[in-house]
Amino acid sequence: MNLVDLQRRKITLEEHEIPENYYNIVADMPNKPLPPLNPATLEPIGPEALAPLFPMELIKQEVATDRYVEIPDEVRHIYSIYRPTPLYRAYGLEKALDTPAKIYYKYEGVSPTGSHKPNTAIPQAYYNKQEGVKRITTETGAGQWGSALSFACSKFGLECEVYMVKLSFEHKPYRKIMMNTFGAKVFSSPTNLTEAGRKILAENPETTGSLGIAISEAIERAASDPDTKYALGSVLNHVKLHQTIIGQEAIKQMEKAGEMPDIVIAPFGGGSNFAGLAFPFLRLNFENGSNIRCIASEPSSCPKLTRGEFRYDFGDTVGMTPLLPMYTLGHNFLPAPIHAGGLRYHGAGVIVSQLLKDKLIEAKAHDNVEVFEAGVLFARAEGIIPAPEATHGIATAIAEAKKCKEEGVSKTILFNLCGHGNFDMKAYEDFFAGKITRHELTKEEILASLATLNTPTID
Amino acid sequence: MNLVDLQRRKITLEEHEIPENYYNIVADMPNKPLPPLNPATLEPIGPEALAPLFPMELIKQEVATDRYVEIPDEVRHIYSIYRPTPLYRAYGLEKALDTPAKIYYKYEGVSPTGSHKPNTAIPQAYYNKQEGVKRITTETGAGQWGSALSFACSKFGLECEVYMVKLSFEHKPYRKIMMNTFGAKVFSSPTNLTEAGRKILAENPETTGSLGIAISEAIERAASDPDTKYALGSVLNHVKLHQTIIGQEAIKQMEKAGEMPDIVIAPFGGGSNFAGLAFPFLRLNFENGSNIRCIASEPSSCPKLTRGEFRYDFGDTVGMTPLLPMYTLGHNFLPAPIHAGGLRYHGAGVIVSQLLKDKLIEAKAHDNVEVFEAGVLFARAEGIIPAPEATHGIATAIAEAKKCKEEGVSKTILFNLCGHGNFDMKAYEDFFAGKITRHELTKEEILASLATLNTPTID
Repeated sequence: MNLVDLQRRKITLEEHEIPENYYNIVADMPNKPLPPLNPATLEPIGPEALAPLFPMELIKQEVATDRYVEIPDEVRHIYSIYRPTPLYRAYGLEKALDTPAKIYYKYEGVSPTGSHKPNTAIPQAYYNKQEGVKRITTETGAGQWGSALSFACSKFGLECEVYMVKLSFEHKPYRKIMMNTFGAKVFSSPTNLTEAGRKILAENPETTGSLGIAISEAIERAASDPDTKYALGSVLNHVKLHQTIIGQEAIKQMEKAGEMPDIVIAPFGGGSNFAGLAFPFLRLNFENGSNIRCIASEPSSCPKLTRGEFRYDFGDTVGMTPLLPMYTLGHNFLPAPIHAGGLRYHGAGVIVSQLLKDKLIEAKAHDNVEVFEAGVLFARAEGIIPAPEATHGIATAIAEAKKCKEEGVSKTILFNLCGHGNFDMKAYEDFFAGKITRHELTKEEILASLATLNTPTID
Repeated sequence: MNLVDLQRRKITLEEHEIPENYYNIVADMPNKPLPPLNPATLEPIGPEALAPLFPMELIKQEVATDRYVEIPDEVRHIYSIYRPTPLYRAYGLEKALDTPAKIYYKYEGVSPTGSHKPNTAIPQAYYNKQEGVKRITTETGAGQWGSALSFACSKFGLECEVYMVKLSFEHKPYRKIMMNTFGAKVFSSPTNLTEAGRKILAENPETTGSLGIAISEAIERAASDPDTKYALGSVLNHVKLHQTIIGQEAIKQMEKAGEMPDIVIAPFGGGSNFAGLAFPFLRLNFENGSNIRCIASEPSSCPKLTRGEFRYDFGDTVGMTPLLPMYTLGHNFLPAPIHAGGLRYHGAGVIVSQLLKDKLIEAKAHDNVEVFEAGVLFARAEGIIPAPEATHGIATAIAEAKKCKEEGVSKTILFNLCGHGNFDMKAYEDFFAGKITRHELTKEEILASLATLNTPTID
């Protein structure tokens, strides 16, 4: 008989250990976020502007100042379909790197749609249902967010309408079918169903669509029907709030593992995935004087955190939103066509931007080729093919682990593996075919994009 | 504060609870399997015939009679990347069916390649490595087995060559890229690398290939190089043996849940997935006088268990293997082009066939449309999109749960959710588009296929 004790690779929690509250970092921030501004008057605007689009409870959360927001029982019950998610010690990756560092990762790919997005889709669907909403609309590009909301709506008996950018609709049919499987209606945007869509189609019947157009359609639909609301999958404060369930679980799991991370890492797009893991660890820094480094990992071809400017800018590309105080490359910035899904967004969420400004978090950019090399190394070592977005966090973790080896020190590194790559194999195909190449963004390109802004700067 | 106790949906085990032995049901069978026959002489043949293709340890396992076979430490360490796999109480499905039955499922989709196949790929790669083999060849159709072996070889530093049926190679590129990601070489079969391939190409340059051709190529390559062996992903006894890790874990998990199943269900192709879950429960029937019903779920368009004949037949379509005593539709049987991957095999493994003959297990067939309806219902209720193969087990579980409701009794049902459908969304697309229709196989079609056999019958 073989009585060897296996190393403990996976640290799990029971359903009753699903956190009972979301953590609202605003309560602990030394400098609170600046207010959003009305782009016409440049006056601060209040949450009431959001009322036509979102249920009241989410609007309250958007401006909440309490440290904790209770998670409703029904939401925790739906969470229990996939939460608590596992935390892994990356023995395979440590061995492949021959590093003295201890590497852990929190794995959000076990969710029904394979990423962290259901963490906010579920409470958003719940609060809409509570307030009598019948239908939620949203936009989706690659499909990650649309599929998460489709799943969440199916659990609460809500209709779900997804406006999917035509180019993706035609080139990424499997995400669309996943949404159909969960019962959602998916439209190729622009459609004939909205004024915005009809206008675009009249001007250019051959358009392949854009996220901006899809947003306009989803918002128009919600604004014109009292039974319909709209939902957003990143950037906003309430979205980040919901994602803090990730980091709160991770703290319990690290405690079970008997240690705390020196470095916490997550990929960075709009900020919700990073916020989700990092904010609860930042709470430890605020409360206990811990000194945990939190690093946001972004693509070097869309480097708003490492090379952008902290100023007011629009949240969308067409200039319909309030002006938000954020690190931005300018809302007209168009990143190179890289395989990094949501990481191609021009700006960073408001809270994360303020934290970076105050040097409470760090940021690191990685080249396109470097992240795919990290992804393939990780897949072979750990047996999970990561989503292209997730490879950015892996690249930072590998860089820090290599530094440990060079310096001969052992640090504990934790990163967020925010999703699997099962629906992203085309990206790996391109990588193996040599179609993914290094991309150097010049200082001039960034300055040119920022020069197009006439929005307020911040001292 | 919300202090509600969540229902316990997921029953997990720790790494040290990974079973230490495989369970060999042959030791407990009242009637042992009949021997394979040499098709030329009709004499029983021994395991030595397998020596050019398989390492000695696997050949020993193929004919083992001991009740337990120890799992090597290194294999358990690789297993710990994804094992123990979770067992779920299907509260969502129970609610959707409004049934008094308690439904559980063991979920094998958490493996690196999304199915139960790595359970045997890992020990097969290990034993080859132990015996100095440098390279393993295999064939793959849809790609499920090829990707599992690719992963396993990457963990032991073995080269892996996969001969993938040309039609799949061209239509299912993502499985191919998954294999590449794990470091395997994947060839579109027929190739110019083997005599078998060259011969076929000379006769028909436009061929789209077949599993039979791919097997011939993989075997030729292994037989002609002393550093190379061949691996098979189902049907053989040692493959079934390795899969028993599933049922042994499930027994521990059901004990933790405080009950034992009345009914155990698994999809049936060659038999390894069914054997994996059911054999350890059959051991309880043998040892403790338990009376657990074990049901194999097959497609009604390939119904070897429910409508086939128990007789000697070839294991492959070209007639190269020894004659095996099995339930079969005849090795020339060509099922309708349904979306059920490995469930389209014409015969059943030897051990499972003997158990069915002896009425120690049951079988049930489901129509194509019924299984996809079951799959979509399950996805919405439980948040996992099942592989088309896996939907067959779900359909049987639903049928039994409905019977419980009709009869007003509560039974405990456990089924094997052998894999996720992330790489099978085309099948769901076809289902939603109405392209999957009911298919009635006539008695005449089955008799006509069996009439082509001139192999020995069994009384």
